[in-house]
Amino acid sequence: MHEDFVVKSRVQDYQVLFVQDFIAAFDGKDRDEVFVIADKVVIDMVNDRLKDLVDERCIHVVEALEEHKTLKKCEEILLWLVGQGFRKNHTLIALGGGIIQDVTAFVSTVLYRGIDWVFIPTTLLSQADSCIGSKSSINFSSYKNLLGAFYPPKEIFIDANFLKTLPQSEIKSGIGEILHFYLVDGRVDLAEKLIRSYTECLKSPESLAEYIEESLKIKKAMVEIDEFDKDKRNVFNYGHTFGHAIEAVTSYSINHGQAVTMGMDIANHLSVALGYLKEESRAALHKILEKNLPDFRLTRQCADDYMKALSRDKKNTGNNVGCILTRGAGDMFKVQVPFDERLKNQILSYFELYQPVLLG
Amino acid sequence: MHEDFVVKSRVQDYQVLFVQDFIAAFDGKDRDEVFVIADKVVIDMVNDRLKDLVDERCIHVVEALEEHKTLKKCEEILLWLVGQGFRKNHTLIALGGGIIQDVTAFVSTVLYRGIDWVFIPTTLLSQADSCIGSKSSINFSSYKNLLGAFYPPKEIFIDANFLKTLPQSEIKSGIGEILHFYLVDGRVDLAEKLIRSYTECLKSPESLAEYIEESLKIKKAMVEIDEFDKDKRNVFNYGHTFGHAIEAVTSYSINHGQAVTMGMDIANHLSVALGYLKEESRAALHKILEKNLPDFRLTRQCADDYMKALSRDKKNTGNNVGCILTRGAGDMFKVQVPFDERLKNQILSYFELYQPVLLG
Repeated sequence: MHEDFVVKSRVQDYQVLFVQDFIAAFDGKDRDEVFVIADKVVIDMVNDRLKDLVDERCIHVVEALEEHKTLKKCEEILLWLVGQGFRKNHTLIALGGGIIQDVTAFVSTVLYRGIDWVFIPTTLLSQADSCIGSKSSINFSSYKNLLGAFYPPKEIFIDANFLKTLPQSEIKSGIGEILHFYLVDGRVDLAEKLIRSYTECLKSPESLAEYIEESLKIKKAMVEIDEFDKDKRNVFNYGHTFGHAIEAVTSYSINHGQAVTMGMDIANHLSVALGYLKEESRAALHKILEKNLPDFRLTRQCADDYMKALSRDKKNTGNNVGCILTRGAGDMFKVQVPFDERLKNQILSYFELYQPVLLG
Repeated sequence: MHEDFVVKSRVQDYQVLFVQDFIAAFDGKDRDEVFVIADKVVIDMVNDRLKDLVDERCIHVVEALEEHKTLKKCEEILLWLVGQGFRKNHTLIALGGGIIQDVTAFVSTVLYRGIDWVFIPTTLLSQADSCIGSKSSINFSSYKNLLGAFYPPKEIFIDANFLKTLPQSEIKSGIGEILHFYLVDGRVDLAEKLIRSYTECLKSPESLAEYIEESLKIKKAMVEIDEFDKDKRNVFNYGHTFGHAIEAVTSYSINHGQAVTMGMDIANHLSVALGYLKEESRAALHKILEKNLPDFRLTRQCADDYMKALSRDKKNTGNNVGCILTRGAGDMFKVQVPFDERLKNQILSYFELYQPVLLG
């Protein structure tokens, strides 16, 4: 059994509940007062069971594509909700992964100055990470993630059975994000345990439930201190700056969590180069990360694209890259690294040292 | 001298500052990091002085019309901001009344998950009421005030000199809202004092500064208890339900605050009819309110329209009108009154009793 818990929030405290069946999210709610925003892939799997709980006209299906994570899609949902008679005291349930979460959270933030919403995350990334923390991100015009807010759901229902339906790359992605929480919190023991059962977790992903719980509890502690992402919470960007740039140069063909896994490995390498981390500590962390590294090699040819992607990171100030480095697991810190040839060469040397064969 | 104060908020505490000159809002802010959303009427008056403080390309002028209080206008402003290089650490200053406040607050809520904004209210209603309380309201599609959020500015600068530029009807409107705060808080002394200096205030509206300060302090106390308008804050709807319906049936030709003044008078009349209030208390309150009543008479012919407008109020539940009644100044409470012939006749009797001459 997993332990339910409460996340304290400036907006409203909210509950994380581990359930055997996501249907629990509908318990005690009036059929006429519940509306659902559902991922197309998920609804196809659960529609038969949903029928008894909610009217078909109260379900809005969204294809979970980046091009639907837009203000335009949110407007479409708002019009649908009001047209179907959604009122201030009704509840909106999001069923899906991060994109469904983003649009539902945003709609819930702005409708009637905030409505109650409930989240049933169905991907490993959303179960182990994004479901808590209050954040939403919405694309607008040509700008990615320009809009958003901090507005948590009232309840989150984690049903690990959804994980069985996911492609392996999504499981690896989630594992990358989970490892990142463990290392930020100094829980090398958990990271090593997860890596030892890596093959088993890929085979039976529902067994990841215990790792999800630990991951969320680490995140909970930090978002309770810094819900609005003013400072302390930025240690969670560990691996993300360098990971995002990998996603960008590969046109997002490499999944987020594995890109973050490599991003952490790069951050550790830089931490050694800049004198923050001992080489033996880096090597020990590399042993954990290597199992989940993506199949990506930075060649000299694409190095400039990578640097350009890095330079666009929103955490940068002036001519620096804002990144999270480390003095060891549990000791991450933010630093502005001058964006110059030295940094570029240090990043290239990461790929030369650990993936020498494939360098172009 | 007036006393500056802080309003505690779940989002972030914010300051109300009484200044001799609104220019103070720009003190200590970097010219390159300040952008302004300004009411067209106001900018025409202050543009010469603004030039030294902010680049022309960083000022966006909005006509303060209800049809601009829309998501569409907010999108236009968002694109303008990003196009001009507005960044997460920059500051957006709103210069104008309630409509400028609404669009700036909404834009600030959703851009980069929340940016710092500063409000310089220029109308009496926004100085004495709306500037604190965190609320925004935005029209979307055919729906009035459908969208919105709770997101306060970081600072509010009250410069009473702006009041000199306002038409008399706006001063009367603000006085209505101020009286409403005084009565809700049981400050009959202040209400009587304001009414005694009514003519003087219309002539020299800058002398209203002391009344603004008292009004805001009453509101501050309540929004700190119930920022997100869950329950306690609803006493501030005193006079508003019946007032909104007056605005609606007159196509908003009667200003908000005077409609609220009459709304309070109606609420008091109903409170007597329903046995909550003594007639002598009602009469004493009427003596305060009558000076600020609008020139409006409900005839039997338009009574049905009035009832229809009442029935659309969002505070209603089922077949009831959710309204705030009173047992006397300082003792307001919410009650659901059955929406029936009796209510209609009681409202009509208000007009028959106090405005017998003009009834159709």
